[in-house]
Amino acid sequence: MKINVNPAKGMRDLLPIEKEIRDHVEKMIINTYKNNGFQLIETPVVENIDNLLGSKGGENLKLIFKIMKRGNKLNITKENLTESDLAELGLRYDLTIPLSRFYCNHRNELPSVFKAIQVGNVFRAERAQKGRYRSFKQCDIDIIGNPDCDAEIELLTSTAKALTELNVSEFQIRINDRRILKSVVMDCGFSEDDFEIVCIILDKLDKIGIDGIKNELSGKDFPSESIDKLLSMLDEINEGDMNILSKYGVPEEVVENMKCITRNVTTLADGKYDIIFDFTLVRGMGYYTGPIFEIAYKGLGYSIAGGGRYDEMIGGFIGEKIPAVGFSIGFERLVNQMIEDNYKSPGNEKIVLLYDKEEEVSAVIKKAEELRTNGYSVSLFKKAKKVGKQLNQLASQGFDKFTMYSQDELEIKNLD
Amino acid sequence: MKINVNPAKGMRDLLPIEKEIRDHVEKMIINTYKNNGFQLIETPVVENIDNLLGSKGGENLKLIFKIMKRGNKLNITKENLTESDLAELGLRYDLTIPLSRFYCNHRNELPSVFKAIQVGNVFRAERAQKGRYRSFKQCDIDIIGNPDCDAEIELLTSTAKALTELNVSEFQIRINDRRILKSVVMDCGFSEDDFEIVCIILDKLDKIGIDGIKNELSGKDFPSESIDKLLSMLDEINEGDMNILSKYGVPEEVVENMKCITRNVTTLADGKYDIIFDFTLVRGMGYYTGPIFEIAYKGLGYSIAGGGRYDEMIGGFIGEKIPAVGFSIGFERLVNQMIEDNYKSPGNEKIVLLYDKEEEVSAVIKKAEELRTNGYSVSLFKKAKKVGKQLNQLASQGFDKFTMYSQDELEIKNLD
Repeated sequence: MKINVNPAKGMRDLLPIEKEIRDHVEKMIINTYKNNGFQLIETPVVENIDNLLGSKGGENLKLIFKIMKRGNKLNITKENLTESDLAELGLRYDLTIPLSRFYCNHRNELPSVFKAIQVGNVFRAERAQKGRYRSFKQCDIDIIGNPDCDAEIELLTSTAKALTELNVSEFQIRINDRRILKSVVMDCGFSEDDFEIVCIILDKLDKIGIDGIKNELSGKDFPSESIDKLLSMLDEINEGDMNILSKYGVPEEVVENMKCITRNVTTLADGKYDIIFDFTLVRGMGYYTGPIFEIAYKGLGYSIAGGGRYDEMIGGFIGEKIPAVGFSIGFERLVNQMIEDNYKSPGNEKIVLLYDKEEEVSAVIKKAEELRTNGYSVSLFKKAKKVGKQLNQLASQGFDKFTMYSQDELEIKNLD
Repeated sequence: MKINVNPAKGMRDLLPIEKEIRDHVEKMIINTYKNNGFQLIETPVVENIDNLLGSKGGENLKLIFKIMKRGNKLNITKENLTESDLAELGLRYDLTIPLSRFYCNHRNELPSVFKAIQVGNVFRAERAQKGRYRSFKQCDIDIIGNPDCDAEIELLTSTAKALTELNVSEFQIRINDRRILKSVVMDCGFSEDDFEIVCIILDKLDKIGIDGIKNELSGKDFPSESIDKLLSMLDEINEGDMNILSKYGVPEEVVENMKCITRNVTTLADGKYDIIFDFTLVRGMGYYTGPIFEIAYKGLGYSIAGGGRYDEMIGGFIGEKIPAVGFSIGFERLVNQMIEDNYKSPGNEKIVLLYDKEEEVSAVIKKAEELRTNGYSVSLFKKAKKVGKQLNQLASQGFDKFTMYSQDELEIKNLD
């Protein structure tokens, strides 16, 4: 039987060299987080479809891969068949829904303040395009059960430390608070219903500038005094001076909370990175209830990590109040950027040991084992007829050195 | 919105303590294999459904989780709708189909003899029961492109080494060859069509004994002289003496190949484990073409690893001849056995650092960082009202020690 040798549409195979870099980055991030007291958990990629479809996932809900019912449950001869008659499971589109379900299910077995790490693939049936995949890795930390700003401080400094230890520098933390956005927008006289639209426009400031914002706001049916007040606030906040916020209706404790976060993070950053208050940071997800933050890298047009506080979501699942705050590293963007920056993952040197067909295999393997105990990774290959060509190919496939088998001491040479 | 907090049926959440043991075992196995020159790859959990349904997966094909078509492709109002109208993708049920597809797709970028490691979850909609899951981890190595027995020797000794380095001992390798089975059964006068049935009966020898075999064979419509010849062969082979095989029609080169494998593996085992030729080892999969092998552990009724040579499969996908041999560790069985044997994964000592709500967080984190540079994993918790109860709970959740924050030197105490 012939097969289609391509991966499923939008999915990808990982060859050894790329896999090695990715695994190294993942291991480093996990080690930093574990060292900082977070605990690694795992949830299934498959979830009950009702949990997924009932979540606040916005556009992502349209991108869910649905898994069919089986056996007697699947009745395709039913009249007026709908999609929901057919599916009972789905592939997760993020790690936050599974984490929330996990926490509700297991909280009696977990510390009262639970610091979770979760790394895994999520699935979204996006329109396929270069560099965008339908299965990609996310790398999340969350602190559940702590309503105070030390949770934000730990998330931010732990993630900054993970990046620093990967030699990723030149990054900047941007932070805002949904309550600040809400207070200001309301104080300017916009209606509750217009809050999300105003936020979406504000979010574009770094792309379209203050004049662009003015144009977009004027294009909608907003009161002109509201637009004017918001624009003058934007002008005034330009320097990031949080002290003006109370003038625009932001409660004192919200301002103090933001000051506590930025002060502590700045102390701990010790000059290695910045944290700046940015009133135009919005972040899409509707479930955020407090501080929201992103990490911008090297002036790229996108962030490599983002998150925020979502105090209503987990508790809402079981009818209680459970504060939570999370931070997610965009693993694919980070790795791509590191590969672009010529990052080499350290690892054992890889030696090719060539031998003749006639040798007794156990003798060759024993020699290889000697090298392995010296910390080399050793791969056995039978000598090809064209040894030069063979060695050239191996050099391009991630091997570093080679040696020819003999019963005496082996001479190790570079492959390039 | 309320949610169902349980994982999908047959799936499971992994709590931090179990996750840590599993990750440690996985890392150790991968490190051994990499050190032995194998290269780690990754394939998607989602495959095109035609590749899965067209494969030689036997009963597993009935257990495939099917993913629905999307958008315009999904036409549920079609007349005489069938399941195949609805599904276009599926979750993989093993790692061999994805590896085969991967190799066919990428072989120009891979060494001419490719030594692959693949670790990942596979999915089978088995009837749910205790200890059996619908998503479980497999851990495979394969050598593609080498028709000779040094491939088998490397697979066997590498896997034995991985187990030894996990302190799993008291295991035994059992080996046979599908060609030996075939030659003997044919030589005894059974028909080609009866080969698989005779094998299934032979496979039961350790459960039902020689009399049981005799009864089962007699219960079928086989010539009595065939039954008698096979039984006397079983009697004669009892001591594992391969020299009698040529008397029963086994080609000389097949016997020599088996001798080469057992001789070399015995030399390399160096007394740490055994390899025995076992004529009644059958293994289920129809795609095996040569040596087949298993690792039995501590006299348990099942194997913890198994594999064999499958020279026809990968080549068959693209109409060429490509020899291949693979070995799969049953990760779930191995880990369960290790947990039962009270295996503790080594890891950083986990310290709880308790602090008062009033402290400046950055000062507390700086103290934690000092401990972290000394190799401890440090988790911050605010002091609860009932500190004793708090510490008891943390002790049961995988933490080892605790200390109270102060600006002076910290005193670290055991948690239990």
